[in-house]
Amino acid sequence: MKKGVMRPGHVQLRVLDMAEAVKHYRDLMGLIEMHTDEAGRVYLKGWTEVDKFSVVLRQADEAGMDFMGFKVVDEATLDSLRQELEAFGGLDVSEIPAGELAGCGRRIRFTAPTGHVFELFATKEQPGKYGVGHHNPEAWPRDVGGMRATRFDHCLLYGDDLDNTHKLFTEVLGFDLAEQVLDPAGNRVAQFLTTSMKAHDVAFIKHGEKNKLHHASFYLDTWYDVLRAADLIAMTDTSIDIGPTRHGLTHGQTIYFFDPSGNRNEVFAGGDYFYSDHPVTTWDAEQLGKAIFYHDRVLNERFLSVLT
Amino acid sequence: MKKGVMRPGHVQLRVLDMAEAVKHYRDLMGLIEMHTDEAGRVYLKGWTEVDKFSVVLRQADEAGMDFMGFKVVDEATLDSLRQELEAFGGLDVSEIPAGELAGCGRRIRFTAPTGHVFELFATKEQPGKYGVGHHNPEAWPRDVGGMRATRFDHCLLYGDDLDNTHKLFTEVLGFDLAEQVLDPAGNRVAQFLTTSMKAHDVAFIKHGEKNKLHHASFYLDTWYDVLRAADLIAMTDTSIDIGPTRHGLTHGQTIYFFDPSGNRNEVFAGGDYFYSDHPVTTWDAEQLGKAIFYHDRVLNERFLSVLT
Amino acid sequence: MKKGVMRPGHVQLRVLDMAEAVKHYRDLMGLIEMHTDEAGRVYLKGWTEVDKFSVVLRQADEAGMDFMGFKVVDEATLDSLRQELEAFGGLDVSEIPAGELAGCGRRIRFTAPTGHVFELFATKEQPGKYGVGHHNPEAWPRDVGGMRATRFDHCLLYGDDLDNTHKLFTEVLGFDLAEQVLDPAGNRVAQFLTTSMKAHDVAFIKHGEKNKLHHASFYLDTWYDVLRAADLIAMTDTSIDIGPTRHGLTHGQTIYFFDPSGNRNEVFAGGDYFYSDHPVTTWDAEQLGKAIFYHDRVLNERFLSVLT
Amino acid sequence: MKKGVMRPGHVQLRVLDMAEAVKHYRDLMGLIEMHTDEAGRVYLKGWTEVDKFSVVLRQADEAGMDFMGFKVVDEATLDSLRQELEAFGGLDVSEIPAGELAGCGRRIRFTAPTGHVFELFATKEQPGKYGVGHHNPEAWPRDVGGMRATRFDHCLLYGDDLDNTHKLFTEVLGFDLAEQVLDPAGNRVAQFLTTSMKAHDVAFIKHGEKNKLHHASFYLDTWYDVLRAADLIAMTDTSIDIGPTRHGLTHGQTIYFFDPSGNRNEVFAGGDYFYSDHPVTTWDAEQLGKAIFYHDRVLNERFLSVLT
Repeated sequence: MKKGVMRPGHVQLRVLDMAEAVKHYRDLMGLIEMHTDEAGRVYLKGWTEVDKFSVVLRQADEAGMDFMGFKVVDEATLDSLRQELEAFGGLDVSEIPAGELAGCGRRIRFTAPTGHVFELFATKEQPGKYGVGHHNPEAWPRDVGGMRATRFDHCLLYGDDLDNTHKLFTEVLGFDLAEQVLDPAGNRVAQFLTTSMKAHDVAFIKHGEKNKLHHASFYLDTWYDVLRAADLIAMTDTSIDIGPTRHGLTHGQTIYFFDPSGNRNEVFAGGDYFYSDHPVTTWDAEQLGKAIFYHDRVLNERFLSVLT
Repeated sequence: MKKGVMRPGHVQLRVLDMAEAVKHYRDLMGLIEMHTDEAGRVYLKGWTEVDKFSVVLRQADEAGMDFMGFKVVDEATLDSLRQELEAFGGLDVSEIPAGELAGCGRRIRFTAPTGHVFELFATKEQPGKYGVGHHNPEAWPRDVGGMRATRFDHCLLYGDDLDNTHKLFTEVLGFDLAEQVLDPAGNRVAQFLTTSMKAHDVAFIKHGEKNKLHHASFYLDTWYDVLRAADLIAMTDTSIDIGPTRHGLTHGQTIYFFDPSGNRNEVFAGGDYFYSDHPVTTWDAEQLGKAIFYHDRVLNERFLSVLT
Repeated sequence: MKKGVMRPGHVQLRVLDMAEAVKHYRDLMGLIEMHTDEAGRVYLKGWTEVDKFSVVLRQADEAGMDFMGFKVVDEATLDSLRQELEAFGGLDVSEIPAGELAGCGRRIRFTAPTGHVFELFATKEQPGKYGVGHHNPEAWPRDVGGMRATRFDHCLLYGDDLDNTHKLFTEVLGFDLAEQVLDPAGNRVAQFLTTSMKAHDVAFIKHGEKNKLHHASFYLDTWYDVLRAADLIAMTDTSIDIGPTRHGLTHGQTIYFFDPSGNRNEVFAGGDYFYSDHPVTTWDAEQLGKAIFYHDRVLNERFLSVLT
Repeated sequence: MKKGVMRPGHVQLRVLDMAEAVKHYRDLMGLIEMHTDEAGRVYLKGWTEVDKFSVVLRQADEAGMDFMGFKVVDEATLDSLRQELEAFGGLDVSEIPAGELAGCGRRIRFTAPTGHVFELFATKEQPGKYGVGHHNPEAWPRDVGGMRATRFDHCLLYGDDLDNTHKLFTEVLGFDLAEQVLDPAGNRVAQFLTTSMKAHDVAFIKHGEKNKLHHASFYLDTWYDVLRAADLIAMTDTSIDIGPTRHGLTHGQTIYFFDPSGNRNEVFAGGDYFYSDHPVTTWDAEQLGKAIFYHDRVLNERFLSVLT
């Protein structure tokens, strides 16, 4: 009785200028550059991640997210989940062969009702934790710079059909609804979904368009690391959105900023934990300001409208 | 495909003087006092825990642990795990009726090969997070004092038969071996087992006697909370074992001390996370000092020999 | 060869409703309520302060600062500074008799060229650090709540004649100019003055009107305390200005908010230290956004225009 | 009325192997290597220090401290203090010509009644804060590694004649006694002396021998930096004495370790502040364990007996 879907495994982001993007994700955020494939895509990961990569950058004419992938426990689970996805209907399920992403096994791809492309995979090369390994491991590697982001954590996505996406993630993929925002009529306008102890592995906010990326988020160790991240944003004249602050939803300690292509990033620390028997945490839409930015208790327009 | 066993649900500890013990666990450690039952047992929990209690104190002539309980996802899983425990053999499986612990459903009890008594249960009253609840919840309750321990986290137990206990926890209960210490002959002398993203939900160290408690551990938010805990230990003239320091194993930031009955407690923050596809982290017994106390790199005699 | 002027000793603030104000400064900010005098003024101090009080609240029809007082080393120094103040000219020097503020000796009052009223005094009752005292003192008192502000730290004042006020503070009172902002023509538009290792004991910003208060500031131990302060601001629905963030000037970690009368408060941690041989730190006015709010690098209108 | 003696300006330490010592102070502690003089002495400083150097390493056959120097406000003060030192009697006052230490003006040297050699100087080259300077300065330099010690802070010295050394520092040099330890007969067995807001700029403990160094101490920003320092001590297999912990005296958060020559170092954060009107804080010798190590409340033998 293992959990089927383990965790967010990777996100492929479109960037306008690869050199600038690598500088941002590697030198500023402190991700480890792992590989460049024949198509010119650059692969990175956080130093605590055991798999070969969690971020793939692809040069394109428009920023945004190509797809987000989840790792499942084994190939048999992958087969069984493929069948369930096909039975769900309308998801345009397909298989990407092993090796299309370097070091990654076959991926089962589908399009969620919000228009976002997701993938499941069971196999990826596993070089282990960067710099410390798994034999008498030191506490942290001394040569990681920048924000020292420890792992790719989750994405927040904007799209239209939240209800069927909720149904897909909970009934087929085994996620739980950890937190939600309800409008006065009781409609869910935000849903935070988890397949682990994390407060969210993927989240959706109701929006008129399909398939928009709000942000890709990375984990930091502490509130002091959020301060260091903010300092580095200032020192490198990086475009900031908002922070340091705390969220009401999940209570994480956070800062938002933009990569050179305009994709929003978050780095955050702390936040609530979740087990599958926990009651759903509900925020009222009237309290959305506090739910999003706990300290300011108002939303900035940019946070709501700038998407890629 | 939900995980069967979710988390440590409770530990029942024997204390020599109930009034002193309550003062320690409630006023010093900051646990919430929830209930006293007809037998005089006192129930407490950390403020982030949604279930009714996670610590039960029972007055007795000798300190130590009566049993540790794990919560499973539902009653059907409890039935199926009972069958598997009985099929495993030699565990002396029995059922404790609902209500024997106030607010807790029936418990399936068994004795592990190390001599420790464990329980599984699926149902417990769920008053929700203390002081903040689940509707537009504030970040933390303002009226929690002392160390503000957020939850009961794990136990470290000393016993003889590590191999069969490992087999029981991994093959029947679905735990993973996250970390281990191997002696030069390759024998496992310490095993850290998890059923979640936590680096350990229960751990065992090889020892000549059966059924000994090394410590019951509680989670704090940050390294600053470890400092505050250490300060409070000094201010209240509480018996300290060691800390603040960091572990090599799990890399948690920790301090150890004793309750008035001599049971060892830990409060800690941080530490590694785990997924079921992670390689086992192995420490060599020659590095045991660093594995246990990362900074000092030597063990103190008290840590190895004082057990209840 | 002792320093003549030691530190900011007190600030008297006008508040519109005393009960609301006491709730704010005592319960939210964590200052210790020390005294109410016959005129109904309420006296408070931070727990680390040895003197009887550092904040005096006076009920009035309009918010703002009545005066700010500095403590000098002894009565002889007070006499000699009085003579120098009179020799400086135009300061409207007067003496307030001992006891007009409860527990405080005679005060030499004067009006700086910016229109702000300052005082010097040498004697104040000294009950010592709250809760811990000076004999085998514990690290901190267990019964201080709220933000746990440790001391009144400085004021930022807006006024017109910065040059003569600079001359007064450096030539007569022995302060040093630690930091400044210069406009493109080389005029000083902000001056941060110190009489200690602190980056500022009082600061002035160029402004068309005389005698305006921007904020009274209080010191916290750490960046985590700034987060707690922000959380408490949210929980108590207190009006926030901006933060948590860092300043460029002094590099302190800060948050701004308003008392119920509209007086702005700051609580902050960290920041640069100063010695009298240090070069003046200069910020260009073109970089004023970054100088004030290091992370956002832009000013909010409210920060510039809301004064009391 | 400026303070005459401003701060600890430098310490010259004897090391057995220069290459190993530089590796320790530069790469592990994160001091900035500034200069090597013709005699082979290596000069370093913390990144926040504005003067050219604060640590001088000299290769010798025996570890220990050659001398500790204090910076005074100007050359006239230096002359006047020289006269007072000579009038005090028995201090063996001499002048070291400018340039003997590279970039440093003339130094007035004397031997305190405890046998330690001290110096006063008024002039030193002032390159400013490392990496950030004093014009629109960033919050911190990105290229400082290791423990990132921010400044040389103080020395703790062991010697015999505490009373006359106290008289010398308070009556001639203008220091204040901030904290003391008294034995049951009321004799001062430890004295912490300050010439600033710091809880100590130099401290002495009663000891049978003259002229021993207990440790040279360096300042860190936060308790998290103390954790990082402890981690780096473990990673580099550096000899640790004790920590992380907190002192009772000064309440600083600390860790002690040894350089490769056996000189003890401290890095610490936080701690109390001092003004010259503060009452002396007194610890009873019966509480010496708690005064030194607030959490453990017992002394380790090594801390008392290992000196250089």
